[in-house]
Amino acid sequence: MFDWKHITKLDPDRKNDEKIVKAVLESNTDAIMVSGTQNVTKEKVMELLKMLKEGDKPIIMEPSDPSNVVYDVDYVFVPVVLNSKRGEWITGKHAEWIRMNYEKLDAFRELFDRKIYFEGYIVLNENSAVGRVTEAICDLKKEEAASFAVVGEEILKLPIIYVEYSGTYGDPELVREVKSKLKKAKLFYGGGINSKERALEMLSAADAIVVGNVIYERGIESYLDTIP
Amino acid sequence: MFDWKHITKLDPDRKNDEKIVKAVLESNTDAIMVSGTQNVTKEKVMELLKMLKEGDKPIIMEPSDPSNVVYDVDYVFVPVVLNSKRGEWITGKHAEWIRMNYEKLDAFRELFDRKIYFEGYIVLNENSAVGRVTEAICDLKKEEAASFAVVGEEILKLPIIYVEYSGTYGDPELVREVKSKLKKAKLFYGGGINSKERALEMLSAADAIVVGNVIYERGIESYLDTIP
Repeated sequence: MFDWKHITKLDPDRKNDEKIVKAVLESNTDAIMVSGTQNVTKEKVMELLKMLKEGDKPIIMEPSDPSNVVYDVDYVFVPVVLNSKRGEWITGKHAEWIRMNYEKLDAFRELFDRKIYFEGYIVLNENSAVGRVTEAICDLKKEEAASFAVVGEEILKLPIIYVEYSGTYGDPELVREVKSKLKKAKLFYGGGINSKERALEMLSAADAIVVGNVIYERGIESYLDTIP
Repeated sequence: MFDWKHITKLDPDRKNDEKIVKAVLESNTDAIMVSGTQNVTKEKVMELLKMLKEGDKPIIMEPSDPSNVVYDVDYVFVPVVLNSKRGEWITGKHAEWIRMNYEKLDAFRELFDRKIYFEGYIVLNENSAVGRVTEAICDLKKEEAASFAVVGEEILKLPIIYVEYSGTYGDPELVREVKSKLKKAKLFYGGGINSKERALEMLSAADAIVVGNVIYERGIESYLDTIP
């Protein structure tokens, strides 16, 4: 996973018809992430996963809540929202999740070595669903964003830092600053990538770009343009 | 440090006279931690450290805020309050701290390998200063406390988990439950240890006990009784 450049994020709450799924599976994207903040139920996730398993791309489950984690995938990427004002998005829901698996904790913890990775999110669009729900501190200067990234990498040992502008296109200078302070963690960028130009610009700053909404909003051709 | 059994916590805001300092330095305590939640200034910390450096015990600085960290010690133990409702006590102040050292970040990060360790605090006395300030979720069943500990150890890779009843004596069963779920992290217990009996009881549950208030409140003899 650590040489991925392009990740396609599909939202189980959106209309994922056969045409969309086929285009993604036949594209050169490196991996497919199933993720969404709102109205995500296990049923919707299962339905989308079933369609995706027709192909051979690595499938990542990115849960928004302990109640909708599905493990029958290649990877589970769990967000830790570094710049949230609310502890529940940093450690609280994670403790709930451990509690839910407490009776079979040893078997559960084996999954951590095999497929569960933690992403240090830095959420930067306060008007997005994820920004509102997590009460993220979004008015960060680039050095402040990079400081949260260092907390994620150095203090909490997270293998992935994820700069998330969710729905808007972010500041490449900020992304570059964050990248310059990371030693080992991979830097993912997400938000507003809807063209080849934006894809290339953010790829020059981050290790990987996460592309999602474009496929629902601008169609398959625009989506394919974002793949390097 | 990983075979310590007894740590003496001194509060820079209390009256640390020569008699107290001498007794601690001549005792069999394994290490001395300089720590406090309220009214701690760098000046008070420096004054206490100066007295302690007369002896040869390992000295730990445990800052309550990025503004009062002192590095000229053997160890710096930085709390990450796992069960806080407020993100600032989990990641926020830590990001501020990184930001304060941003211009010399490489040199600063070298300290992380040499002397800076992170403690996953689980704060369990809601009426204590630390409980109020961090808005910790204190009404935890033992399995819930242990779930926060697993978050600290497994997800955030913290080397120390610290069950802190600050000012009251805690539930040994809860401490035992937390210990039973840890694989690598050392478990520290703090709170209300003011006698040999309590010291032995908590030592049978945790890896190390942290003893502080007794020396100010019951005197040196009672303090010495807590050292195994």
